[in-house]
Amino acid sequence: MSSTSTTADSPIGEQITALQTRIKGLKMSKQDASLEIDQMKVLQDQLKSAQREAGAAAGSKSAFTLKTPKGTIDHKPEAALLRKKIFSTLEGVFLKHDTSPIDTPVFELKEILAGKYGEDSKLIYDLSDQGGELCSLRYDLTVPFARYVAMNGLTSIRRYHIGKVYRRDQPVMTKGRMREFYQCDIDFAGHADPMVYDAEILKIVCECLTALDIGDFTVKLNHRKILDGIFELAGVPADKTRTISSAVDKLDKMPWADVKKEMTVEKGLDEAIADRIGQYVGLKGPGRELLEKLKSDKDLMAIPRAKEGLDDMEILFRYLSVYKVLDKMSFDMSLARGLDYYTGIIYEAIHESSAPPSLPTNPSVPAPTKVSSKAGKSAKPSANSNVNEDGIDESTVGVGSIAAGGRYDNLVGMFAEAAGKKAEQVPCVGISIGVERVYSIMEMRRRGREEKTRGKETEVYVLGLGGVELEKRMEIATMLWDNGIKTSFSPKVNPRTPAQWKQADDDAIPYVVILAPKEWADGIVRVKAQVGKDAAGGDKGEEVKIGELTEYLKDKLGKL
Amino acid sequence: MSSTSTTADSPIGEQITALQTRIKGLKMSKQDASLEIDQMKVLQDQLKSAQREAGAAAGSKSAFTLKTPKGTIDHKPEAALLRKKIFSTLEGVFLKHDTSPIDTPVFELKEILAGKYGEDSKLIYDLSDQGGELCSLRYDLTVPFARYVAMNGLTSIRRYHIGKVYRRDQPVMTKGRMREFYQCDIDFAGHADPMVYDAEILKIVCECLTALDIGDFTVKLNHRKILDGIFELAGVPADKTRTISSAVDKLDKMPWADVKKEMTVEKGLDEAIADRIGQYVGLKGPGRELLEKLKSDKDLMAIPRAKEGLDDMEILFRYLSVYKVLDKMSFDMSLARGLDYYTGIIYEAIHESSAPPSLPTNPSVPAPTKVSSKAGKSAKPSANSNVNEDGIDESTVGVGSIAAGGRYDNLVGMFAEAAGKKAEQVPCVGISIGVERVYSIMEMRRRGREEKTRGKETEVYVLGLGGVELEKRMEIATMLWDNGIKTSFSPKVNPRTPAQWKQADDDAIPYVVILAPKEWADGIVRVKAQVGKDAAGGDKGEEVKIGELTEYLKDKLGKL
Repeated sequence: MSSTSTTADSPIGEQITALQTRIKGLKMSKQDASLEIDQMKVLQDQLKSAQREAGAAAGSKSAFTLKTPKGTIDHKPEAALLRKKIFSTLEGVFLKHDTSPIDTPVFELKEILAGKYGEDSKLIYDLSDQGGELCSLRYDLTVPFARYVAMNGLTSIRRYHIGKVYRRDQPVMTKGRMREFYQCDIDFAGHADPMVYDAEILKIVCECLTALDIGDFTVKLNHRKILDGIFELAGVPADKTRTISSAVDKLDKMPWADVKKEMTVEKGLDEAIADRIGQYVGLKGPGRELLEKLKSDKDLMAIPRAKEGLDDMEILFRYLSVYKVLDKMSFDMSLARGLDYYTGIIYEAIHESSAPPSLPTNPSVPAPTKVSSKAGKSAKPSANSNVNEDGIDESTVGVGSIAAGGRYDNLVGMFAEAAGKKAEQVPCVGISIGVERVYSIMEMRRRGREEKTRGKETEVYVLGLGGVELEKRMEIATMLWDNGIKTSFSPKVNPRTPAQWKQADDDAIPYVVILAPKEWADGIVRVKAQVGKDAAGGDKGEEVKIGELTEYLKDKLGKL
Repeated sequence: MSSTSTTADSPIGEQITALQTRIKGLKMSKQDASLEIDQMKVLQDQLKSAQREAGAAAGSKSAFTLKTPKGTIDHKPEAALLRKKIFSTLEGVFLKHDTSPIDTPVFELKEILAGKYGEDSKLIYDLSDQGGELCSLRYDLTVPFARYVAMNGLTSIRRYHIGKVYRRDQPVMTKGRMREFYQCDIDFAGHADPMVYDAEILKIVCECLTALDIGDFTVKLNHRKILDGIFELAGVPADKTRTISSAVDKLDKMPWADVKKEMTVEKGLDEAIADRIGQYVGLKGPGRELLEKLKSDKDLMAIPRAKEGLDDMEILFRYLSVYKVLDKMSFDMSLARGLDYYTGIIYEAIHESSAPPSLPTNPSVPAPTKVSSKAGKSAKPSANSNVNEDGIDESTVGVGSIAAGGRYDNLVGMFAEAAGKKAEQVPCVGISIGVERVYSIMEMRRRGREEKTRGKETEVYVLGLGGVELEKRMEIATMLWDNGIKTSFSPKVNPRTPAQWKQADDDAIPYVVILAPKEWADGIVRVKAQVGKDAAGGDKGEEVKIGELTEYLKDKLGKL
């Protein structure tokens, strides 16, 4: 009996069960609100110590639990193969666009990351001080990229990078929020004419999301300069711009009344100013229509920053139209993006399934919004088919944005300057594609179609009937391997025939090559299709001369 | 002026130069001897503090240096693309052999790694204790694999894993010894009949090294049980077996006299016992011949363990012969492998270029060795063409083994037991391919051939002559991108023609599509081949109708 079951009926066992139930309840009731998270942390600590106590009480010898660290998971074969396919799809698109991969270390000098993530800096993993330099695990791929550009004195590079990043966040496995997760970034650094790179990045995102074949999506677009112009027009004091901006960014998760409260009560903004902001940030819709509306707003156009931003958007929409992706865009004044370093356009791609569940609608935003027909569609909670091990219905959990980014023209210069180099500005624009979210969507769609995923790609199973030695199977396998055919066979000298069929079935291997003693003596084997349209064919399989087996299988496998 | 050059002529500048010279001298004079490494560390610390002092003296404002942490590097585009090719070659071979990828976290619970690496445990990177679990960066991929198998209660899995591992070792960049480096492991866990999996792993290694096309190689083979049998026969006390084994393992780097000294003087072994060991460990040669010789040794065959090992080898050679890779093997009694956990066959693949430089030959080993014609060939130090930035001639630096591994039948059971699970043994056999070494060899060969590597795969450059707007180039690029053609163009609205040609040349882009105002009006562009056999053709390029451009280029690029 394991130590867990030993304690299930003891008082401490009951305590554990109660704590587990409360934690689960909290997880299901709310998404992100930090109050619940703090509460959950306390409960989880209580749970942990109760479990420790229970272990000690049961006199368990167990020195440790076999597990991965909190917030990390093993990607098992099926998951690892699917991720590999996602990566190669994305890389295929990236490489079409004149880009290069780079690969930076998983940890950086601590001082490189310091001061780049505002409040989130507390989420950075540090390495122990074991003598030598102080290092931290990378938090994203953007700061290492800026460090790379500054360190090598580059003036232009178009790079992509797929790698894991690390955040000591409260993990929410069901939402795919992990402490270790893949990021997949593409960034263009260098001096291009206005909006040329910006438009291409947006074209790339659309190509990527289309190539991944995960359903419809919308790209929300905004411009920091327009937003800043609105704040200026509304009368937001300069020192409050960023904090008010981050309040605006919550409009996709909170109703306007709450955002306004954050601005006025929490952040001390004058209510009249907040109301003036509210007149603008509710605006969204197809690019050119909203652009015309804003350009006819004389007050706004009188603010130089706002005019600059609107001029940018006009050029951008022209290019996006040539790129045939303008219909994917939604100009959305409520998009602000959290990070401080954006200086120009900002964007977020939203998947059709990803509206946050059961949020109150937003009636108090003064200017009624014109929602793109694609964005904001709510995911329908379905029957129990999607309820996972934790009892949480994943279909109701919005996966949020699947890609996000923007222009950041000052980050590289900041590095160069901080390191005492000639502080040359290298303007950048880029996007990060949320691989984990793409993966979740693919998984949900696959489950919806009740498709089985394979954890291997094996094409042929070599099966020996009684009396055919292992070496014969090895001989055939060698012939197939050496011709690029993915082949497997039983590792037993005398395997039972049913066990061999079972292995071929379990692994869903498309073709079985059957070696029988008499046929072998005649230089013949039989090939039986296990899956696909040929599977229904002759029960005993087709006879093939050994000398023609490779060509026969290559033909069947589409490898000729 | 940088702070370095400021101080070059000052007393402290001289001190720095002197220290740098001594360090370089030490690096060049010896490879690994730990005395020199300690000395070097002291010097490097002195150098560092002198540099700090110099910086302070120069009044440098510089808060930090833009660099990657010690022992880590950025893989730049050319290097990252080449590694990507290595990985996909290896994955292609692995997937042929009925294997699955898995992907485990970069860090593990500290206790998972504890006690697995003997003395090398000091090289493990720990994460800071920031509350919560204590974690360490993985040191290899084998221990996480065993943890994965035990944790999931698997009884069989054939997995590969390519990922970075971390060792706080003294980095020797010129030898490719880094603190962060890729490992590429393939392991089979599960109960197979004797030597079936072992033989397939060796077949896989041969397929991999052949597919990588890096030149000739030899796989040194031995068996822990034979080695232990020899120790038993020689009279080595049981508690000294592993330490004497690790002395034997140094025979590829040290002459027998030194190894014997280590055994007797350092490790207190009786001289007569050492001599008896010496009679065996010098033996090596083609598998079957040496096997016959050992099987005719009645004393050795009387030791049960030795006989078991030799029986294994006999089966193994039979399978390797069916797999057509027996000629790649060298049965080598001096191969012992450092790690404690091996229980059966052990192996190491040696590249033709990788004999350690200028080692004394080994005349005092009693039994004259019969060296395979391929193994042990010395790398020829060539002219200065290979001298790198650090002034070290890389061609004289042996790259060591390019793959190594063996059978380890008890590791998974250890984990299961330690975690209080039912301690089921899951026998394993595997190999780790030294990606960094493969990369170094490829790089050296490429430089030898004076080939240029590209950091991108762009196939077509769209060039606009005066008067053709940016949107036209975008339009053509969109058409090509949407048809899977890797395309680039200038990000300027009005780029100068020479600047466009330069960009196409710098990036070695094979085809240039030229848009000229008059031809464009007629629906025509010109295509000019820049590299390859077509490049010599018509100076002005070939005229192609815009509607036929995609097909034309696909044909040229072999994409039809």
